[in-house]
Order: sequence, then structure tokens, then C-alpha cells
Amino acid sequence: MPARRTLSVGLIGYNFMGKAHSNAWRQAPRFSQLPADVRMKTICGRDVGAVKTAAVQLGWENAVTDWREVVEDPDIDVIDIVTPNDSHAEIAVAAAQARKAILCEKPLATTVGECEEMLAAARKARIVHMVCHNYRRIPAIALAKEMIDRGELGDRVYHYRARYAQDWITDPKFPLVWRLQSKVAGSGAHGDINAHIIDLGRYLVGEFREVSATMETFIKKRPLSAGSRRKGKVTVDDAVSLIGRFRNGAIANLEATRFAHGRKNSITLEINGSAGSLAFDFEEMNRLRFYDSGEPENRRGFRDIMVTEPAHPFVGDWWPPGHVLGYEHTFVHTIADFVRAVVAGKSVQPTFEDGLQNQRVLEAVSKSAREKQWVKV
Amino acid sequence: MPARRTLSVGLIGYNFMGKAHSNAWRQAPRFSQLPADVRMKTICGRDVGAVKTAAVQLGWENAVTDWREVVEDPDIDVIDIVTPNDSHAEIAVAAAQARKAILCEKPLATTVGECEEMLAAARKARIVHMVCHNYRRIPAIALAKEMIDRGELGDRVYHYRARYAQDWITDPKFPLVWRLQSKVAGSGAHGDINAHIIDLGRYLVGEFREVSATMETFIKKRPLSAGSRRKGKVTVDDAVSLIGRFRNGAIANLEATRFAHGRKNSITLEINGSAGSLAFDFEEMNRLRFYDSGEPENRRGFRDIMVTEPAHPFVGDWWPPGHVLGYEHTFVHTIADFVRAVVAGKSVQPTFEDGLQNQRVLEAVSKSAREKQWVKV
Amino acid sequence: MPARRTLSVGLIGYNFMGKAHSNAWRQAPRFSQLPADVRMKTICGRDVGAVKTAAVQLGWENAVTDWREVVEDPDIDVIDIVTPNDSHAEIAVAAAQARKAILCEKPLATTVGECEEMLAAARKARIVHMVCHNYRRIPAIALAKEMIDRGELGDRVYHYRARYAQDWITDPKFPLVWRLQSKVAGSGAHGDINAHIIDLGRYLVGEFREVSATMETFIKKRPLSAGSRRKGKVTVDDAVSLIGRFRNGAIANLEATRFAHGRKNSITLEINGSAGSLAFDFEEMNRLRFYDSGEPENRRGFRDIMVTEPAHPFVGDWWPPGHVLGYEHTFVHTIADFVRAVVAGKSVQPTFEDGLQNQRVLEAVSKSAREKQWVKV
Amino acid sequence: MPARRTLSVGLIGYNFMGKAHSNAWRQAPRFSQLPADVRMKTICGRDVGAVKTAAVQLGWENAVTDWREVVEDPDIDVIDIVTPNDSHAEIAVAAAQARKAILCEKPLATTVGECEEMLAAARKARIVHMVCHNYRRIPAIALAKEMIDRGELGDRVYHYRARYAQDWITDPKFPLVWRLQSKVAGSGAHGDINAHIIDLGRYLVGEFREVSATMETFIKKRPLSAGSRRKGKVTVDDAVSLIGRFRNGAIANLEATRFAHGRKNSITLEINGSAGSLAFDFEEMNRLRFYDSGEPENRRGFRDIMVTEPAHPFVGDWWPPGHVLGYEHTFVHTIADFVRAVVAGKSVQPTFEDGLQNQRVLEAVSKSAREKQWVKV
Repeated sequence: MPARRTLSVGLIGYNFMGKAHSNAWRQAPRFSQLPADVRMKTICGRDVGAVKTAAVQLGWENAVTDWREVVEDPDIDVIDIVTPNDSHAEIAVAAAQARKAILCEKPLATTVGECEEMLAAARKARIVHMVCHNYRRIPAIALAKEMIDRGELGDRVYHYRARYAQDWITDPKFPLVWRLQSKVAGSGAHGDINAHIIDLGRYLVGEFREVSATMETFIKKRPLSAGSRRKGKVTVDDAVSLIGRFRNGAIANLEATRFAHGRKNSITLEINGSAGSLAFDFEEMNRLRFYDSGEPENRRGFRDIMVTEPAHPFVGDWWPPGHVLGYEHTFVHTIADFVRAVVAGKSVQPTFEDGLQNQRVLEAVSKSAREKQWVKV
Repeated sequence: MPARRTLSVGLIGYNFMGKAHSNAWRQAPRFSQLPADVRMKTICGRDVGAVKTAAVQLGWENAVTDWREVVEDPDIDVIDIVTPNDSHAEIAVAAAQARKAILCEKPLATTVGECEEMLAAARKARIVHMVCHNYRRIPAIALAKEMIDRGELGDRVYHYRARYAQDWITDPKFPLVWRLQSKVAGSGAHGDINAHIIDLGRYLVGEFREVSATMETFIKKRPLSAGSRRKGKVTVDDAVSLIGRFRNGAIANLEATRFAHGRKNSITLEINGSAGSLAFDFEEMNRLRFYDSGEPENRRGFRDIMVTEPAHPFVGDWWPPGHVLGYEHTFVHTIADFVRAVVAGKSVQPTFEDGLQNQRVLEAVSKSAREKQWVKV
Repeated sequence: MPARRTLSVGLIGYNFMGKAHSNAWRQAPRFSQLPADVRMKTICGRDVGAVKTAAVQLGWENAVTDWREVVEDPDIDVIDIVTPNDSHAEIAVAAAQARKAILCEKPLATTVGECEEMLAAARKARIVHMVCHNYRRIPAIALAKEMIDRGELGDRVYHYRARYAQDWITDPKFPLVWRLQSKVAGSGAHGDINAHIIDLGRYLVGEFREVSATMETFIKKRPLSAGSRRKGKVTVDDAVSLIGRFRNGAIANLEATRFAHGRKNSITLEINGSAGSLAFDFEEMNRLRFYDSGEPENRRGFRDIMVTEPAHPFVGDWWPPGHVLGYEHTFVHTIADFVRAVVAGKSVQPTFEDGLQNQRVLEAVSKSAREKQWVKV
Repeated sequence: MPARRTLSVGLIGYNFMGKAHSNAWRQAPRFSQLPADVRMKTICGRDVGAVKTAAVQLGWENAVTDWREVVEDPDIDVIDIVTPNDSHAEIAVAAAQARKAILCEKPLATTVGECEEMLAAARKARIVHMVCHNYRRIPAIALAKEMIDRGELGDRVYHYRARYAQDWITDPKFPLVWRLQSKVAGSGAHGDINAHIIDLGRYLVGEFREVSATMETFIKKRPLSAGSRRKGKVTVDDAVSLIGRFRNGAIANLEATRFAHGRKNSITLEINGSAGSLAFDFEEMNRLRFYDSGEPENRRGFRDIMVTEPAHPFVGDWWPPGHVLGYEHTFVHTIADFVRAVVAGKSVQPTFEDGLQNQRVLEAVSKSAREKQWVKV
């Protein structure tokens, strides 16, 4: 019997996603049966004080300020990238060349070109790669995938309808933070949240064929900082709405917005197939609604499956039946599967190929909105 | 004090909508304070046996087979048209020329040209005219309108999102009924149900400026009749999905489908304004959900307004608080308002102008889907 | 073939229930296939002006002020009693002696003794009798009954849990109306609304064996009339809460209150059997929730059956699939079944025996609350 | 500035609750600003192999098999007791005598006598003590408490209605595990889950004055082990149902059952006050429903407060707005508050006094069910 392996991890970045990934690295070995131990070796960030504080708070042994140091550390097996999007490509390519397994927070990069480069580097180095689309591992979504794959919605999908809605910038006095500046953020609701429901569409239904989209910036100028009288131009979209076609003939209808009062982090989706339908609402993330057209005519109805049972994906690792999970668990599931993939030497979905393909859809949507015409993916 | 007037009504048509309108003509005087009495004088249909049976069952004094006879009857004050869509224009123009008040079931007609002709005739004759978009008089929808008009959603609307979903033709063995034949029905889900959420969009948000749409016929051939082996081509849409812009800048996202398993007659809509949001689901038609962003930060939430109180639109006519209403009540409210309009000599929304404007949107959507490009309304 | 019969009806009473029953007498022949025609001959009330107005508004041929005149009218086949509870017995006994079929609004009477007398008179005269517990004919409740009878909840019921909650007298300034005076109303929430969920318990689960109850009058004195400074004592219960046992071993837990802010006319119930559960909420009266423990472990969940399909009880008479019904339809279904029963010459549930048995439970509950001990039914 | 203190913790017990508490000890310092560091020093269990495995899996430095060793360890500041209920008292008294701060999993003990002894010991030693009723620190429940304390439900509470329902032993083939044996478990649904809704009643409404209860064991004999043909007697309750009065006049209605098919770990409660109502459902634990009777008459409705905002209790420590929490977070909040209490030297609710008072209610309920009469608490 071979000695049990220990995977040493280097995390590049330490903000919101750094907190979520750190939690997952800490929790995964506590709850999941993993084929290796995890060592949270190094966290990296540009601000030396902040990264040192983060290391203590989030549970990393070392704090460094130069990501190259982490990538070049021969002790480190895994690079986890949670930096701003425009730096993903450079770090990932270097990490691939250093033969590290890579987990990269979504979106994989900011352009199709960068994504292609990352994928090429990963393939060349034959490393294990994964892009972190955590919502794929909501137990209810994983169950949906299982049901679709087993044909429980039938042999055809007719509709994929999804909305990701928030309301955190509805106040016109909300300042011009970096997420509202195109140069830094790339895009607004589109890259940030539309990206998630595009990924879920690809995961659950299939590849997009073409799209027609519109984007809007409702509040065009905002205070440069909170309370400031000086204003600057908002250069990203507040909302994006699109229709489209999947290659398998299903119709897509998506909307992502930061201007839906009352929707804090609402992800709703419905899939209508030839034998049934599925519906999901992230505000009730422990449920999946399933309509089975095979039930007797007078007994049919959407079934509220409480996805909290040991028989459901990922749930057995946690608590007894009926004990609900939350947002952060999706990252724990992702990292547990990533650890298994690294030990097995085989990438697990969603890979960099998924990241690249998502980026192709995102760019098609942007182009369609810009040019006011249908665009093929 | 003038003598109380009696309005004599002639109903042209006797199927599903004939049943719904007849019920409303019978019920309105029982529950609403009307400024005139109603006499259900004549019902008209082409099949002499069927129309006679209908007269007895639905409560009409006479049954005739020639609609001209009804229109020319000097005793009749009101013509109510519930025939197939392609006959609306001819009947309405004749009725206008005969100076009858006209209630016409939606859609007003099958082309913009016909609608314009009808409106012109109605205007020339200075008659009271109304198109029956019954869903405007769901109490929850009427309350929504009242709230929007009073500014409770703020001074801007950002999003109008609506779906009308059914599942009655999901079975490929379902036969090629007339509603699936373009020559007779004009269109499929589009004219039948998309028309409703377009009208509600115009009612609640404003005029459409432009649209980009796609349509699909999922099951392209169907048995000519139930159980038949011979098949014919389905020539209408099974589903339509669209994005668009209102003149006031709001984004529209609509979908109408007959292929959503589990959705029997589901109309869901959400409106996001600058000060709050409204959400509605016809499956729970006695509720309106309202999010008021003016509430204290830690007390905010979508409020389930049970629209079953005397203080709510139309509700006071019926039962004590909390006693839910159903589908047919929307027609009773419509006809009560129509009777008031006839007596007042002033048309009430939705008028033929609304019917015309709806048709313009419907045609823009059709054209957009056909030509795969954005189309101005 | 025998001539089609016409049933002539006399309605005693004309307030809220008079309106609801009149509507049902008008509507039933329009929507249901009935084996007889219905003639709404006479309405009776003590106030001559009011009853004349009611006759016109509600659709009755004649208005009289003496109920004996109606009962003695040889033309009349059916007596429908919707007077205050304390007059039910006298009228019903007289009507039975006159060999009329009788429909009596719930509660059957105000004491077990009266109920026994009514039942004896009805049996002796061999008339068709029915007590109007309209909620039994909510389609979702009728479906629940059908499912329980077919064993879909299993061979045992463990729990019946129900609440009927309103909030119309929460304001201490609400005046001392007759419903709050014991002499006139008998009891408060108990006889008015607890009676309904007791009846549903008997209908769906079985006979009560014993109960332990508590009652409370939260606001003990109220203005004699709206705005008055003089106050009088409230002599009925505001709320009643009870536990109990059914003869079949199921546990009962019921609560009826007029002091639940936000609950306008809320009836919620849940039944847990050995093979599944049912849940119902009158605010969404077109739904029945069903949990089938026979589903695969990872696909189980409460199913939202939209009870709006032709395959569901009573629904086929109305509109196409998915078109929701309301409160008043329950009376139409009741009266349609009553007409069928009269023509068949055979009483239909709930009969006067049900009314009597309900009264026995009501009195046991009252006694238990009064004496603070368990009481056998 | 004083040196930052480190609290060393000894955990006695390692099963389900051991896992939940360990997670909380690990997570609290990561997410909450605590006034001390936490050292997870020792875990204790009787099975040496199991406790060693648990130490590694759950993150404890040492594993021992004799709880006295932990209690006597001078390095240890805090004793956390998650052993079977019948051992709580002995351990807690010893820990108090050793002047350790004590967190004890609910129920505090198995008899009122034991609870009194524990409280006396804790008081005498002037230690910080807390009983772990984790559901008090569901953010929605904490918000409910805050709202009630601020008078947002008015100055009176009329009704407290709660149900805790599960379905894990509905199958008669489910074996006679220790939880179904009175000698080991004390009671069934009553002590296990009814205890929770009794505690929530005391927390949110006030002290119970008297109760009338019934208990039932639906399946009286079960296989001695899974698949066994030999059966033994179930000696605990499967369900308990009760009515009662609070000292402040509110009516209580509670039910706890393990026989509600489809309810996995369902805790529902509703509180009706003189100015509004609150409703909660643990299956949607991130929501609190609030009805404010002070809203305008035609805008009132239950408000779905998504308790996921930084302005809500406990939520600010976790993720951005709208990111839902789960079951285990309630323990993290409890332990964070306990750490603060230990450092402050002042017990925080729920204390051993709460545990004692809960036990008095539990015993009153048991006595009432046994003797079939009302029992004063």
C-alpha cells in the first residue's frame, strides 16, 4: 500500500473568493473522504500587511507577495487562482509550465485568446486543471444533472430559462467601484453573474449555437467615491438579457441584472424537456423541483425534492437528513472533487475547456449586444 | 331622474370564450353595481343545433346563425365578438357602422391593417369600444397598475420579465387541431398567449420600442386526427422567446410556450423599478408580491399581498376578506367596466387602440423571428 | 323517457350565505350536467324591503317574510336554510314534515338535541337531507378524500393537523357585533370556523374519540358599536386550541382563531399516513400537496398537484386546464351534488348525521375547555 | 494592552453533536471577531480507536477516554459536553467544581433534579455556563427575537404555534435503536425535538404556565436490529402533541413527531401578536416571514425577509448579501457567543437556568400525557 500523499496548496489572492476557497480547503478534509491530505502552505497577495492578516485568519502557513514565488515553490502541488480576472492567464500559464495542478476561479480569463493559451499550456504540461464554477456542485444542481443524464426529462430539451438577479447597485449614489469600470472588471453583470447561468446552461443542456442579446447601463454616471460630488462614467453593463439556441435545438432565455430590487443573489432556472421539467431557485438552494409527466394525469405536479438526504449528491458527507446546507458548501464540494482529480491525475469538470467554451459564449453575447444582431458562438 | 337603461347584448360566437363571456354577462349584474340592466338577448353561431343548445345552457333568449342579423337588430345595443380571430374585423366594422358598442375578444384581429380598419370604423361611428384582455382585471394586476401609477415602484422601470407557459401539446401524438394550423389560427403560442403578456407589458410598463425574437415549432408533424397514422405539418409556432426595449428604457424579456411540462396556464411576471419590485404568478392569482426598497434595510422583503380585501380593486363586489377568486372573475370585472363605459358613452381601456398597438408588437415580433434581426415596433 | 323534472327551491335567509347559495343555485345548472332543472322560486327574510331587494339582486322570483309560507308551498321541492343558527332546527323540522328535501347551512343547529330532532324528523319523513359544509367540495379536498380512500396515504393515519385562522377582530376597537355575543352566535371562532376543520377531520380521517381543549377571549370588552365609548362584554371565544384522538388512533391537533394577524381566511391542514402525507392551504385552494413515500429515496418530495385539470373532481365542469377556481365554486359543487341526490332520492354526504356528529364534537370541545379535562365525544 | 487570551477546550463526546461542535470550534475563529484564541486541545470518548480517529478527523490535539482527565486538566478552560443525556449532570458538576466554563448540549440533563444540581454547582463556582440550543442562533430566529423585543409584534402575544416534524422511523422495519429505548434515551420525539420548540417558545414568547398533552407510540414493536425477525418493545414516544398557556396569556400549540412523511427536519412556527405576526420554516432557514398590521390596509402582507444581509444578526461574519447559510452555522454562532461570554466572565443565554426551566416544561408535558390532565409548570 502506497504512502498517503499530501497535497500542498498555494492560493493566489485573498479577497471574497480567497475567503471562500480557504474555507473549502480547510473544510473538505474534515467532511469528505479524500485520497490525500491537504496542506495549506502559502497564500499570496500584493499587500504585505493584508496578506499576512489573511494567512492567520484563513489558516495558511505562509504569506508571500509575489505569486511567482508560489508557482516556483517545488513543495507546492496545487495552485489555486482567485486573483482579479485579468491576471488569471499569466499565473495559470506559469503554473502549468511549473507542472502544478491548477484550480482557477471563474471566469477562466478575460478573452478567448487568453483562455486558449491557458488550455494549451495545461494540455502541454498534462496537468490537472479545473475552473471553479461552484454552482455546479450545489447538491440540487448536481442532482438535476444526474436526472437529465439518466433521461428523466426525456430525450429532448425544449427550454432553458435562467435569471441571475441582484440589487446591490440600484442606489444611484452607490459609487463607481472597480467592478463598474470596464478596464478593470471587463464587464458588469455579464461576466460576473451571467457567466454562471451560461455555465449552468452548458452543464445541464448543452452547447450554445447562437445568441441575440441586449445590454444596458441604467445609471450612467456615479460618484467617484461614496458621498463624493464628482462623478465618473460607468463603463460596464448593469444588465444583460438574451435569447439563443442550443445546438440540440433547445431555446435559451437568460437574464442577468444588478437592478432587481429584492433579489439579493437570486438564481432561478427552469428546464423543460420532453418528459418533464426541473426548476431551481438559489434562495431555496436545498430544493429541486421536478415535474414528471409520466405520473398519472390526476396526480402530476412539481415535486419539491429536499436535496438534503444521504442519497443525494455530496449530502452524505455532512449532516443527518433534512439539515440544510449553504452557499459555502459548494466550494467544499468543488475542492473535494478537485483533490480527487489531482490524485487520480485526471481533470474533472468543469475543466479549462469549459472555461474557454464559456468565454466563447460570453464574447458572442457581448458582440451581439454591441452589433445588435444574432451571433454564432 | 332618468329611467334606468337596459342594455341588450348580442354575442357572436359560443365556444370557450362564449362560455366565459356569457358567464360574465350573467354574473356582472348580480355582483357589481351597474348603471344599467343587462338583457342577454341573442347568441349567434354557425351550427344551428349547437347554438340553440348554447343559448339554453348559457342563458340567452334567442339563437341565430347569421351574425348580420344580430348586428342589424335595432333592439341590440352591444355586440360582443368571440368568434375565431379572422372574422373579428368584418363583424366589428359592421357593428360599428350599426352604431353598436363593441366588446371584442383579443386579439383584436389578425393583422395591423384589420385593426386599423376596426379602430377607424369605431372612431367614425363614435361608439364605445373595448378589446377583452381579461387579465388586466385580475385584482392583483389591477393593484399592480395602481401601485405603478402612484409611483410605488419609483420613477423608472428597469425590467419587465414575463412568461406564459402551458403544456397541452407536449405529446407528439396530440393531433393537428385548428389551433396548430396557421391558415386558421394565424399563429400559435405567439398570438394566443404571448399576446397576453405583451398586453400586460404595455398596460403596466409602457410602449415597446423594438424587439428581437425567435420562434420554434418543436413537433413539426402531427397526426391529422387523434390516433390517425397520417400526419400533417404544424404551421404555427410552439414557442416564442424575445428580448426588447420599451420606449421608457425598460428591458423586456418575454417567453410564451406550449411546451413547458407542468405549467398548465402559468403566467409569471416581474417588474423591477427604481424603488421596488412586483411579482405575480397566475397559479396564485389572488396574490401580488411587492418589494419596497424604502423599508428599513433589515426588514425588507417581498410582501405577499393577499389581494382578497375590500380595499383591493374589484374585490369588494364579491365575498368577505380572504375568500379567493378565480379565472372567470376577470371576465366579470371586464364586462362590468364595459357596461359602465357604454352608459357613460366613453371607451375604457383596453380600447381598440390598445388592440391595434398590441397587434403592431405582435407583428414586429413575428417579423423579427422570421428575419432574425431587431425590428422596431 | 320520463319528462325532465324541475326542482323548485325556497331559500330561507339572505345574508352572506344567502348570496353564496343563490349564486350556486344560479350557476350549477349552467356548468354541471344536472338531472333536473332548477327554479329559484322564493326567497324569505324578515325585513320586507331587504328581502325584496335580495330577490332582485340574487335572482329569485318571489320574496316573502314568513318562512312557514315557503315550507308550506306545495310547489316547492327544496328548502335551503341559511338563517342564523338558532332557527335551523325549527325550520328544518317543519320542512321535513312538509316532505321537502333540505339543504341546511352549517352548523346544523346549536345543540346536539336540536340536531337529533332534525335528523329524526328527516328520517321519519324519508327526505333527502344535507348540511352544507362547502369546503368538502374544494376540488383539492375532494381529491384528498379520493386518495385517502384509495389507500394512497397507507392503511393508517398518524396525524391530522389543521388550523383555521382569521384576523378580522384583532383591533380592540372593533365593536361588539352579534357574532361576538354568545346568546345570538352560540360560540365564536369555535362554532364558526373550528366547525369547518372538525368536519374536514371527520371527512378525511374518521370519527373523533376524545379531546382536550382550551379557549380564550383575548379582548374581553368591546365598544357597543363602532366608535362608541360604552363597552360591553364579549361572551364568545376568540380562539380555541385542542388536541385529541380519532377512533382509528390518529392524533388530532386543531386550532381556530380570529387573532392571527395576516391570516384572512387561512385554512391549513396536513395529514400524515403510513404511506405518505397530504397538505393543503386554502390561500392556494387550487393546489394539493402530496408526498408519496413509495417514490425512490432520492426523488421523493411533496408534489404540488395543481387541481385544475379535467381529471380532477368537479373541475371538468368549468374551464380548460390550469384555470383556477375560487371560493364560491365550492357552493356550486355542493348544490350540484344536492340536486343529483334529490333526484336520486338518496341523501349525499354530508348529511344531517354528519351535522349531528359534528355538533357532538363541538360540544365535547366546549365542555373540555370549560372543565379543563379530557372529554369523550 | 493585556495579552490576548487563548481558551483551551475539552470536548466530551464525539458523535453527531461532537462533529457539529468541533466544526463550530474550528470555524468560529475564522469568521467571527473573537476576543480570544481557541485551542482545540482534547476530545474524549470511551472507545479509544474511535476517539483517536475523531481527533484527527475533527481537529483535536489529543484524544482521551476518561472524561475526568479532561475536567482535571489545568490547561483546559472550557468543557463542552456532547455525551448522551444521562451523563451530562455528573460531568458538568465535576467541571463546575474544577471551575471550567461549561457549554452543554441540550437537553441540559434528564431530570429537573439533575438540572438543579448542575445549576447550583455552576452558580457556586461562579462559572460561565450555557446550554446549546443552537436554533436560537438561526439568524432568522435571532431577528425574530429582536423584533419581538422591540415591540414590532405589539404588546401582547396571542398565539405560539410550532411543529417539529421528521420521518426517519416511519418504516416499521426500522430497528429498535437506542433512541427508541426509554432507559437510554429518556424519551423519544419529546426530549429530542419537542425540547427545541419548547425552548424557542420560552425564548420568543415567555414562560409556560400549564400544559395539556398527549403522546403516542405508533409502532409498538420493532426488530431488535436491522433485518432481524426478533422484536422488542419501543419504550419512547413517537409523537407528542400539546396545548398550553404562557404566563403572559398567550396560547401554545406544539407538536413533535417522527411520523410525518416528507418532513425531514421540519421546524415551523408562527407567532401572532397584537401588532403583527411572524412565521418561520427551517426548510427555508434563511427567511423570516413578517406581517406588519401597521401597513396600509391594501398593501399588507407577509413579508419574506431574506435574512442574508449584513444588517441581520450573525450574517455579517459570513458572505456578501444573499448568500444563504446552513444548519451548521447555528453552532458556530453559539460558540462565538459562548467564547465572548467566557472572556467577559458573564453567562449568555441560554444558560443552565434556561436548561432547567426547559426541563420543567418537558416534565410537565410528560406528566400531563401520562395522567391525562392539565399540569402546571
